[in-house]
This record gives sequence, C-alpha cells and structure tokens, in this order.
Amino acid sequence: MADSFNVTPWNVDGKVNYEILERNFGIKPLNQDLLKRIQKHTGTLHPFIRREIYFGHRELDWLLDMYEKGEKFCLYTGIAPSNKMTIGHLLPFMMTLWLQQKFDAEVLIQIPDEEKYLAGRRKGAELDEFHDLAKEAALDIAALGFDPKKTRIFLDTEYSKTLYKQAVRVARRITFSTIKDAFGMGNDTNIGMIFYTSMQAVPSFLKSVEEGKKVPCLIPLGVDQDVHFRVARDVIEKLGYYKPAIIHGKFLPGLSGDSKMSASKENDAVYLDDNEETVRKKINKALTGQQSTAELQREKGGDPDKCMVCQYYKFLFEPDDAKLEQIFEAERKGTILAGEHKQDLAKRVNLFLEQHRKKRNAVNERIDEFMERD
Amino acid sequence: MADSFNVTPWNVDGKVNYEILERNFGIKPLNQDLLKRIQKHTGTLHPFIRREIYFGHRELDWLLDMYEKGEKFCLYTGIAPSNKMTIGHLLPFMMTLWLQQKFDAEVLIQIPDEEKYLAGRRKGAELDEFHDLAKEAALDIAALGFDPKKTRIFLDTEYSKTLYKQAVRVARRITFSTIKDAFGMGNDTNIGMIFYTSMQAVPSFLKSVEEGKKVPCLIPLGVDQDVHFRVARDVIEKLGYYKPAIIHGKFLPGLSGDSKMSASKENDAVYLDDNEETVRKKINKALTGQQSTAELQREKGGDPDKCMVCQYYKFLFEPDDAKLEQIFEAERKGTILAGEHKQDLAKRVNLFLEQHRKKRNAVNERIDEFMERD
Repeated sequence: MADSFNVTPWNVDGKVNYEILERNFGIKPLNQDLLKRIQKHTGTLHPFIRREIYFGHRELDWLLDMYEKGEKFCLYTGIAPSNKMTIGHLLPFMMTLWLQQKFDAEVLIQIPDEEKYLAGRRKGAELDEFHDLAKEAALDIAALGFDPKKTRIFLDTEYSKTLYKQAVRVARRITFSTIKDAFGMGNDTNIGMIFYTSMQAVPSFLKSVEEGKKVPCLIPLGVDQDVHFRVARDVIEKLGYYKPAIIHGKFLPGLSGDSKMSASKENDAVYLDDNEETVRKKINKALTGQQSTAELQREKGGDPDKCMVCQYYKFLFEPDDAKLEQIFEAERKGTILAGEHKQDLAKRVNLFLEQHRKKRNAVNERIDEFMERD
Repeated sequence: MADSFNVTPWNVDGKVNYEILERNFGIKPLNQDLLKRIQKHTGTLHPFIRREIYFGHRELDWLLDMYEKGEKFCLYTGIAPSNKMTIGHLLPFMMTLWLQQKFDAEVLIQIPDEEKYLAGRRKGAELDEFHDLAKEAALDIAALGFDPKKTRIFLDTEYSKTLYKQAVRVARRITFSTIKDAFGMGNDTNIGMIFYTSMQAVPSFLKSVEEGKKVPCLIPLGVDQDVHFRVARDVIEKLGYYKPAIIHGKFLPGLSGDSKMSASKENDAVYLDDNEETVRKKINKALTGQQSTAELQREKGGDPDKCMVCQYYKFLFEPDDAKLEQIFEAERKGTILAGEHKQDLAKRVNLFLEQHRKKRNAVNERIDEFMERD
C-alpha cells in the first residue's frame, strides 16, 4: 500500500482511512439497503451499525438470502491477546453478542494463544504467558452476556486436537507465495507465523464439519483481520463448505488519537481492569478537538471527529443517538470545556468498568460452561 | 547436491552413495570404538549394527557418556504412511525395539498422518485416508514386540493437543529461509509442509517437557529423515533441552534394485500383507547380480552387492553372519542359481510375513495399550 497508513493483523500504523481500506481490500460498504434488510429481522439496529462503526462486509447479502430461506447461520469471532484486554477489544464481541441475540445464532470464539507468541510479542515471554492472558480474555468475553448454551470459547492450545486436523486441510491449499503477498511475510518470517492463518480459518467451517452439512457462517471482525479470510475464503469453498460472510468494524481509537487503541501502549489504552483513579487520569490526558484556551474554545468550538472524548461516546458510551448529537453539538459550539467533558466521560467509563467487573466475577465460576477443550 | 542422487524425506532418487551422504549431512560414522562401547552394554550387536546397515550417528558418544553416568534415555522414531507398510519400513522400528530391550528405554513412536497428505501424495485423497493408513501402521509396529508399558504410539491428528503446543515453540525459532535451504522448499510449497518439521521435532523433547527435567533422547531413523533434526537440534537446545542423539540407517533396496524400496511402486515393494503367491512372484522378478545364463553364472559367479536376494538376506532374513557369508559365497562362486536362490528367499520372507501377521492379529485387540491420544 502506498498510503500513509498500514493495516495488518499485527500492526496498525498511521491514520487509517477506512474508505481507502475498503477499496484496497475489496470490501463492500454496509449500505442503506442492507441496513434495512437487517432491521427487518432485528427490529432496531445496533449503534455500531447505525454509526458506521461496522462499515463493510463480504457477502452479507448472500447470508441474509440464506437466512430468509430458513438456513440458520453461526457466528465466529476471536482475539489474540498480547496483553490485558482493553475496552477497544470488546467491539467485535459486542457486535457478535447482539447478532447472537437477534438471530438466535450459535457463536464460536477462538482465542489463539499462540498467535502473538509466534509474532514475537512480549520479548522473551514463553507460550504460558500468552496462555494465561487468553484465559483472562475468555472471562472478559463471557462476561458480556453470551448465552452459554450457544457459545463455545476455545484457546488454540487447548483445542488443537480439533483445530490442527482441519487446519492442515486448509494449509495444504495455500502456498507460501500467497501468504507472502497477502501478509507481507518474507524469508525471515518464522514457520509458525506462516502456518498460523490456517488455524484462524478453521472455526468458520467447523460447524459444517461437525454437522456433516454446509452451515453458513458470519464473522464480525476488526478490519485488520480481513486478510486472513481474503486468503482462506476460496480454500474453504474448495473444501466443500460455504465461504464465510464477514462484517468489518473500525478500530476504537487510542486516547492519544492513534487510529487503533493498542494494548501495548499503557497510556493510550483503557484496560478493563484499570481502577477509577487510573481511568480518570488517563482520560484527563486524552486528545480532544478543543482549542488551545478555554476562551478560544467558547468562541470557536471544537471538532467532535478529532475529539477522543466524543469518539468514545460514539463508539461505546452513549447508545442514544439524540444524546450523542447533544454531546457533539456542545463540542462544536464550545459550550462544554475539556475538563468537564473528560470528567463526564470518566464517570461513564468507570461505571461501565465497574459493571463489567461484577459480571466478570459472576461468570468466573461458570466459565467452564463456555469453554471447549479437547 | 551435485551428486547423481538425491535424498529428501519425500523422495529418494538415483543410486545412493552413503559415504557422500555422510559427508554432505555432517554425519559421523558408527566406528569400531562406538560399536565396542555399545556392545559393553548390550552383550551382542544387532545385525543392523554389525553389518553397517545402521552406519552413522550424531552424538551417540555423548548419549553413551550420559548413560554411563546413570542418565536413562528415551527412544524416538516414526513413520509417515502414504501407502501400506512394506518390509523396508520396519528397519527403524526393529532397531528401536532392540535398543528398547537392551537399554530398557521408553519408546515414543510418532505416526504423522498429516505429513504425506500435506506432501500431496495419493492424488485427490483426503486426510481420512492417511489417518486409516496410520492406524494400520500402528498395528504393524506394535506387532514387532514393543513393551506396551514402555511404548507410546501416537497419530498426529489424535495427539495434536499435546504436539501443536510444543510445535509452535519450535516453529517460532525457525525461519522460512532455514526451511527453504534445508528442504529445498520454495514459494510454491504449501504452508502446512513448511510448518510440518516442527511437529516432527516435538517427540524428541516431549519427555523433558513432561518430566520437567532434561531427558536424553536417541532417534534411530532412515537417513532421509536426518534433515528434520539438522534444523531442529539447535532449536531444541535453545528451548532448554538436550539435543537428541541420532543413529542413521540405510534404506532397504527395492526389488528392482532401487536404493529405497518405495511403497508407491507396487512391484518394487514387498508389503506386509502380500500373500504367499504374490511374494513368490515378486521375488522371482527381483534383480540379482547373476550372469545372463546359468552356464555363465556357474563359470563366473555373481555379485552379492548387486543381488537383491543377497541384500534381503543381509538386511532382514539371515541374522547369522556365518550363514550369510555362505549365501554370499555361493553367489560369488556361482554354485547357486537365481531360480533356487529366489525360491529360498521367498520361503523365508513368507515365513516372516506369516509370523508377523499372527503377531499383528494378536496385538490388534490390545492396541489401545500402546496408543496415546489427547
């Protein structure tokens, strides 16, 4: 990509332009027609969809055709932890949860505890450390409210008897050339990283293997993960299954305005276990779109699109569109100043985190209801 | 290699010169000193060792040092089936069995049912077909007389929860460059093949992982498999385990004189399930070192080194060195003619196969005592 940004599953650099990504990746926009088709089945639309946070898709139209013909689909998403979970990590899971509830769909959640290890994260850390992070991530995910009867969470190292066998079927049909071009790998890439994408492909057709018939699958994912399925979708079809459909989400920006909140940048990220004081301090340092002085801000107003406080309301902390518009308007008109604005958000974030941790504690003792192990 | 032969784990072409292999691979010869050291512990030497069928090693001297200091070692070998088992496949297992008996060692036997699938053997065949072949191979191996209390046989697809987790630790430390050069892979190689060598490395340090301390390991293998450990030995050491020691075996030649009996050449191979009549017919067509007519043969004699009948006696069917010398002498002097020579061998082979199949039947119902599954 000759653009001033770069998006891979392992790095997001520069200011991401989602329109350019859409074009480069060959992703279709989630347009009004599709939104109406979704709404026909769901009644309302999730804020992620209304607000174009989920903005693109592959063959969602086909998936809805199938659904309308009576074929139920499963949902698949996941996360590869390299650190503690942040609020930004929750987006695909929240999207998936809503879809589970609206479409009564079974959910598969892969936590590839080997991926970031293979990618060389956490210098010197052994696999066990990633395994522990993955177990913590499973708790945060289950806490969101998935139906344990219809949700299977698995860690790759605990589920590789099931996964590896299917992954070799995928791997046999992907050459190094393909991987090299798609992921920008080279001779210096380790052979675990090269193989890994075949592990990530498996859950999208695992239900079909288990049921001995084609089961449609929808994958809500952060757009950086699309490349895995650009490679795997054709292979999955060759194996005799449906290509998975995909919906693509934007990244929650970092506190400093980075395009993607990074779990490895302590002060750029809000972790799910940050305490009240930490959250207040971090948000207090967040980038806002405001002017350099209170006077100028009152006179000229700020830009909500450049204000992380406004963006966090938009992404996660104000589901009501009218109220969100009030917040944006106050920013634009300069009727709210950064300090107050940040305090308000910090309260909302802390309230969310407090509730999340309660649910997390409650789910802790029932986590085995969610976990699949070989 | 600029030689007129080529040896990789997936192909053996041309007339193999083991001295050149030894030099090219950096293998040390199993010399008289080592033979004496082995004999000190074993009393006698197995014909494979006496006859230089097992001819080379890596750090066997170190392994014996350790043993003499009181550190027991484990044995590890394996086979990746692409067809029915031949008598040629048995060599590493027979060598391993003898070592188990003499050194009272635990044996790990890997049957990577994905390897030949990934290598694209049996055009169009799916993984299940290789899995079935692997289960058959397990029976043939167990039938040789391994101690079920000290022998663990596993198929990769049934044991990948254990194996994959360790394989990623190996894989993270091997780049595509290394694999490319060592195995002659390229951009058109599939990503499963590229990763596979890390699965083959695991059993050599699995005991160390399980016991939480370094356990020496000796790998008897056909010399074509050496490359896997040329790559993996350094990595295994970096992971904190002992590099495995290796002893290298020659290949049983094919009936037509090919350097390695190939299971995919029906008339070149004696399968363990060939019936009496088939064995007689196949051996009757075997290459001998004899002259073009009976008269010439009686006059000039033949060359035992070029006679497959003599070679099969040497490799598998005449353990007594004096009797073997008589057979060779008869060939050299022309006192035995091809027809009789072949009939005698066919009887020995059929006797062996009959006994093998009896043992195989007997082991069938106790196979689970040998098998390890996740």
